Amino acid sequence: MARLTREQSQARTKAKLLASAREVVAREGYEGATIERIAEEAGFSKGAFYSNFNGKEDIFLYLLETHAGEDVVELQALLGPIENPRDLIDTLSNWAQERSTDPSWGMLALELFRHARRNATFGERHSNLFRAQWEGLGKILLRMFPEGEAPAGPTALGGIVFELTYGAASSFTNGPTVGELVKVALTSMYKAYGAEKKAT
Amino acid sequence: MARLTREQSQARTKAKLLASAREVVAREGYEGATIERIAEEAGFSKGAFYSNFNGKEDIFLYLLETHAGEDVVELQALLGPIENPRDLIDTLSNWAQERSTDPSWGMLALELFRHARRNATFGERHSNLFRAQWEGLGKILLRMFPEGEAPAGPTALGGIVFELTYGAASSFTNGPTVGELVKVALTSMYKAYGAEKKAT
Repeated sequence: MARLTREQSQARTKAKLLASAREVVAREGYEGATIERIAEEAGFSKGAFYSNFNGKEDIFLYLLETHAGEDVVELQALLGPIENPRDLIDTLSNWAQERSTDPSWGMLALELFRHARRNATFGERHSNLFRAQWEGLGKILLRMFPEGEAPAGPTALGGIVFELTYGAASSFTNGPTVGELVKVALTSMYKAYGAEKKAT
Repeated sequence: MARLTREQSQARTKAKLLASAREVVAREGYEGATIERIAEEAGFSKGAFYSNFNGKEDIFLYLLETHAGEDVVELQALLGPIENPRDLIDTLSNWAQERSTDPSWGMLALELFRHARRNATFGERHSNLFRAQWEGLGKILLRMFPEGEAPAGPTALGGIVFELTYGAASSFTNGPTVGELVKVALTSMYKAYGAEKKAT
C-alpha cells in the first residue's frame, strides 16, 4: 500500500479525533470530556489534538457542523428521487424515527444545546448552523406544495421536522413515536396546503 | 398574625426548597447542584431538606411533576373558555412562545432530560409524566376537530405542541420562533381535518 500523503494522514487523524470526541462526550458529558481523554482514546497526544483543533469547543462545533451537514446531504440523497408527496412523508417520518432512536447522537445534541445556552459565542455559531440545517430540509419539503401555497417558509417547515426529530422528551415516552409525530404534522400540512401531483 | 400550623410550616419549607432547587440547577447544572447548596440558599439545613425529599433526584422529579402539571392546569384555564379554533391556535401559539423564552425552565428541562437519559428509574417516572402532560393538552386540542376527524390521538396532538415548545434548538435560531412553528403545525391540522364551528 502506498504511504499516506501528509494531507491524507492529517485527515485521518482529524477523523479519529472526531469519532473519539463523539464517544467520549456521549459517555462523560461535555464537562467530563477532557482533551486528554479524547486524544488518548483516539491514540494520539494532546499535541496532535491541538494541531487539528483549537480546543474543546472547536472540536464539538466541528462535530455538530459535520453532523448537521450530513443530515441534509443524507436527506437530499434519500428524498431527492421521490416525486410523490405521500411517499416523501413516509420516507422522512421513517428517517426521523431512526435518527431519534440513535442514543449517541441524541445525547451529543443535548450536551451541545446545554453548553450553547451557557456560552454566547458558541451559541451564535450553533444558531447559524441550525438555521442552515432547517432551511436545507425545508427547501426539499417545498416540493409537496404548489408554488406559493406552502404553509410557511422553508426554515419553519424544516424546523418543525428537526425539532420533533431531536425533541428531548420524545425519547422518554412509550409512544407516540417521533415518526408518528412527524407524520401527523407533515400529513396535515400536505392535506391543508398541498395538491396531488399527476403521475407522469 | 396567627402562628402557622405544622402543616403550613412544612408546606412553606417545601416550596422554598423547590424554588431554590430550580434556581440552583438552572445556574449550576444538575451535577453541580448539591443538596447543601439547595438547602442553604433556601435558608435551611440539610436535615430540613431530607425531612421533605429523599434526595436530589426526588426533588427534581417533584419539580418537574409540579411544572408539567402546572402547564396543563394553566392551559386548561387559558384555553377552556375559547370556542373558536383559530382563537385557540393563536392563544396556544402565544403561550408556547412565552414559555419557550423563559430561560430558567428551558435550562431546567434540558438538565432533567439529560439526567433521565442516564438513569433508567428516573427515566421511567419522567416518561409517565410526559405522557400525562401530552395527553392533557391533546384532549383540549380535540375540540378543534369534529368527532372522529382529528389527525391523531390526544397524546400525539399534545406531543407535537410540547416538543416544539420545549425544543432545544429553537432557542438558538434567530427565527422562525417557537410560536410560529406551533402556529404552522396547528393551523395545518385544523385546515386539513377541522371544521369551522357555527357561531352560537
